[in-house]
Amino acid sequence: MIERLSTLFVRTLREDPGDAEVASHRLLVRAGYIRRQAPGIFAWLPLGLRVKRRVEAIVREEMTRVGAQEVSFPGVLPAEMYEASGRLADYGDTMFRLADRKGAELVLAPTHEEAFTLLVKDLYSSYKDLPLTIFQIQDKYRDEARPRAGLLRGREFTMKDAYSFDIDDAGLDESYGAQRDAYERIFRRLGLEYVIVAADAGAMGGSKSEEFLHPTEVGEDTFVVAPSGYAANVERYVSTPGEPIDASGIGAPVVFDSPDTPTIDTLVAHANAVVPRADGAAWTAAHTLKNLVLALTDGAGEREIVVVGVPGDRAADLKRVEVAFGGREAEPATDEDFEKLSGLVRGYIGPWSADGPVLGADGSSGVPYYLDASIAEGSAWITGANEHEKHVHSLVLGRDFTPDGRVEAAEVLDGDPSPDGSGPIRTARGTEIGHVFQLGRKYAEALGLKVLDQNGKLVTVTMGSYGVGVTRNLALVAEASHDERGLVWPEAVAPFDVQVVATGKGAEPFELGERLANEFDAAGFEVLFDDRVKVSPGVKFGDAELIGVPWIVIAGKESADGRVEVWDRRTGERTPLPADEALAFVRANRRG
Amino acid sequence: MIERLSTLFVRTLREDPGDAEVASHRLLVRAGYIRRQAPGIFAWLPLGLRVKRRVEAIVREEMTRVGAQEVSFPGVLPAEMYEASGRLADYGDTMFRLADRKGAELVLAPTHEEAFTLLVKDLYSSYKDLPLTIFQIQDKYRDEARPRAGLLRGREFTMKDAYSFDIDDAGLDESYGAQRDAYERIFRRLGLEYVIVAADAGAMGGSKSEEFLHPTEVGEDTFVVAPSGYAANVERYVSTPGEPIDASGIGAPVVFDSPDTPTIDTLVAHANAVVPRADGAAWTAAHTLKNLVLALTDGAGEREIVVVGVPGDRAADLKRVEVAFGGREAEPATDEDFEKLSGLVRGYIGPWSADGPVLGADGSSGVPYYLDASIAEGSAWITGANEHEKHVHSLVLGRDFTPDGRVEAAEVLDGDPSPDGSGPIRTARGTEIGHVFQLGRKYAEALGLKVLDQNGKLVTVTMGSYGVGVTRNLALVAEASHDERGLVWPEAVAPFDVQVVATGKGAEPFELGERLANEFDAAGFEVLFDDRVKVSPGVKFGDAELIGVPWIVIAGKESADGRVEVWDRRTGERTPLPADEALAFVRANRRG
Repeated sequence: MIERLSTLFVRTLREDPGDAEVASHRLLVRAGYIRRQAPGIFAWLPLGLRVKRRVEAIVREEMTRVGAQEVSFPGVLPAEMYEASGRLADYGDTMFRLADRKGAELVLAPTHEEAFTLLVKDLYSSYKDLPLTIFQIQDKYRDEARPRAGLLRGREFTMKDAYSFDIDDAGLDESYGAQRDAYERIFRRLGLEYVIVAADAGAMGGSKSEEFLHPTEVGEDTFVVAPSGYAANVERYVSTPGEPIDASGIGAPVVFDSPDTPTIDTLVAHANAVVPRADGAAWTAAHTLKNLVLALTDGAGEREIVVVGVPGDRAADLKRVEVAFGGREAEPATDEDFEKLSGLVRGYIGPWSADGPVLGADGSSGVPYYLDASIAEGSAWITGANEHEKHVHSLVLGRDFTPDGRVEAAEVLDGDPSPDGSGPIRTARGTEIGHVFQLGRKYAEALGLKVLDQNGKLVTVTMGSYGVGVTRNLALVAEASHDERGLVWPEAVAPFDVQVVATGKGAEPFELGERLANEFDAAGFEVLFDDRVKVSPGVKFGDAELIGVPWIVIAGKESADGRVEVWDRRTGERTPLPADEALAFVRANRRG
Repeated sequence: MIERLSTLFVRTLREDPGDAEVASHRLLVRAGYIRRQAPGIFAWLPLGLRVKRRVEAIVREEMTRVGAQEVSFPGVLPAEMYEASGRLADYGDTMFRLADRKGAELVLAPTHEEAFTLLVKDLYSSYKDLPLTIFQIQDKYRDEARPRAGLLRGREFTMKDAYSFDIDDAGLDESYGAQRDAYERIFRRLGLEYVIVAADAGAMGGSKSEEFLHPTEVGEDTFVVAPSGYAANVERYVSTPGEPIDASGIGAPVVFDSPDTPTIDTLVAHANAVVPRADGAAWTAAHTLKNLVLALTDGAGEREIVVVGVPGDRAADLKRVEVAFGGREAEPATDEDFEKLSGLVRGYIGPWSADGPVLGADGSSGVPYYLDASIAEGSAWITGANEHEKHVHSLVLGRDFTPDGRVEAAEVLDGDPSPDGSGPIRTARGTEIGHVFQLGRKYAEALGLKVLDQNGKLVTVTMGSYGVGVTRNLALVAEASHDERGLVWPEAVAPFDVQVVATGKGAEPFELGERLANEFDAAGFEVLFDDRVKVSPGVKFGDAELIGVPWIVIAGKESADGRVEVWDRRTGERTPLPADEALAFVRANRRG
């Protein structure tokens, strides 16, 4: 196949698009691969579509290799099935909704668990029909609050979603393992580095889930890695509780005046000045306890106010708090929320006051109280005393106050202990490139998918769900593989295998270019031929670098002597050669 | 590629689905190709997806052959661009609409003229960039009032839509011709009979348009064919006006009592009884003039009341009326409409009364009047006299009454004259399988797509748009090619090239089947292998006939002797053969 730049529908741009935050977005637009249609919604031009097809082909091959069968569902589905599973509420505004002319409620499907479950229920009825894994490669829609970074977080995106159906847990383990293996092969073939982390199941529900994270600075996720190699999404990081402390030597809580201490730092300085420690050491932020008043909202819109205490030297991580509270949305309480509370003195909130417990089950305020999981029993704290301009010190956990429970609430930092005891962790940024879930029986139960087992008894099917974002992965390949002059595609997904550039005066370069294009084509290469006349060598080379085809064969000045240059886009190396040797040279040096 | 029926995700059904009106719908569901998700919305199972891919591949090849380049647009687009082109109003309820979380209005694109126009405007600026034809194969959405017949009129369907961009009319003619040729090749390869008819451009706008109709009893369209081969959509049929008649011998109009004449038949009988013709011949329905009070509604919802007169021996064809009135929707006036009219006596409406003209420019009612185009000047009519229980005869067109204009309003019947004078036409049912439009400058003007011409002058680009319904064509292939036992796929689009059926006692049939499956696979055939154990030969053969793979190789009773039967699904012929000859036999007898 030969495509000619003189007719190819492409226009390379000199300028970066104004809204591009990341390299992949910038370069895919500038090189004429994609074009924005609406926020987070793109059209695919011929170059982009070629790369997308190659990524899809890799995904499809690896799915087929593990016996998954391809189907294709509509993007528009009845809202009813999402109502039945509870996801209509879980997704909330993120799900695009519409009604048809008869008023029937529809959604643009964000994923298809419900529809696949119902289809299998519709057609299958026996354990003999299982195991089954079916998948589709399809456009999905999510009305993200903040679409960003081009294809990395779009509102329309192409995804491979697979669903497994098994009669028992052992079967699910096997289906899950097969998909997990396929994912590892997919990312290796795409040349995308990855770590597999224990993940939060989010709106998907279910029991076990792992995320494939691609480490990248442009990522939205943070994950932790232990010296042992153990990795986890930061939302799933489990902190190590401090060893219980013997507080018998600590005196009773002491309330002290604390005017003008709006921050932890001012509070610590003030405490060191007015209530110095008995042992002569200084109070630090680590001795203070911050109490955050949070509103938790569930899918049905039910709002609960709780207070969460974290050590004063750490920020709270609301994403971790949300996971700790079963996926409820967490946000700081509003003025309106505060008006409804009594017994809490804003700015001086703590679990205790001179009159006794304030927060938690026995507290006077009636507001539930949770403490960060890392805090040790018997530890003593400086915290609010629930009086205007008053704090307390020597307030001992377990002696003076008791929370309703422990939660993972504090931010995770480099050097924190790893849950597997292998030493200090490090944190890194990454982006999800794949996600595998053991859904278990959640959807099958909600939608009534049962089959007869070997004893003729109806049993609920157990399911898995497995997603790879095709377009996001494509963008990450571009992100991981570019330089300041343009894209540098790996052979596996490049839009063309080779680009032939004819440039120079007279007919020779163009005749030689034509001959070379045909020669590569005949050898099974996909060829982009820059046959444009009246375009300067500089523009041609610049376009070639921007477009990023791995091998560029230049029929230039020495065409009349039958000589060309072969240009390796990745290394930048240019090798002068007799034209007859170009094909053999590229064949010998290809990386894929 | 070998797929095994023991694991293939398919369930053949004994019963027809309750909602299936046509054979393709019935059989595609029963044989496990598709499954309904909502009215007019289907999921594609593995068998169906395979056929769909093959149809798409044919379309893609023929597009590429004529130089069209593939792109891919989102299904969700901003409503704004459809507002700019006027199509938001034109499509009305047929366009699915939604809003995002920020209230931005979006649509599910019914076709993509606007987005393609804007993309070319965005990237191209010179005549040197043209001509350009770009296409996509993509899922479209239309909220049909009456989705029907399975895939034949769905609310979600896959379509190939192509758009051409040219600097001048000659270029458009060429681009249009190339697409038209490609369409002829596509339908020939699909084995779908077609006629090309002059068509109404409908909501698409533009100047010239032709429709590819596939003649079929399940079609929704009627078209006419002349002895010369000329064919037209019935909406575009142009009637031949009768020769002007010398009415000088006809006396003045005569009003007569006409109680109890609710129908044309009763009116004619009554007229023959009370006001016999002077020449002794009988009045017939052809002497009466029916006046229909119609409400015309445009895209903006503007409603106009008009009266349309057609000969009493013909029904009015409201689809033809709609085209005649520039695509406005036509429906019988409602009681509410009538309340607003004055001077028209319902049941006795005519253009004239004893007091003078009633309808048309000079009429006392002020209601516009249009007459069917076939009616001859000077013809005399029996029609309503605008008085309760009174009609008039000898009312002469041009002498006693004058319409505001002529329209194509009467139904078209077999035997009507062909517009090209080649003799009587015949009418037939068909379904649109492709449509080519010369849009001209309508969209380019509305959206400002101009490029510099050779003289450096900005000129508006001229466009064409070209659509083929992939899923509808697939259904029509099934419709045209089945028998009472199941589908009979032509080689070009069959889900598999050959089906190997192992059946019988012992291991031999299964071992031989396995060997044959591998042999066909190695020879490049796509193989479906019925390797199911404990399934009776009857069920296996029934499933094979239902699924409709063109060649079925049966490894049965004589497997131990190395003998098989090759079964031609189309003719039903079974040929016993040594197993070693099966491949050669199928190769020699394939039709594609």
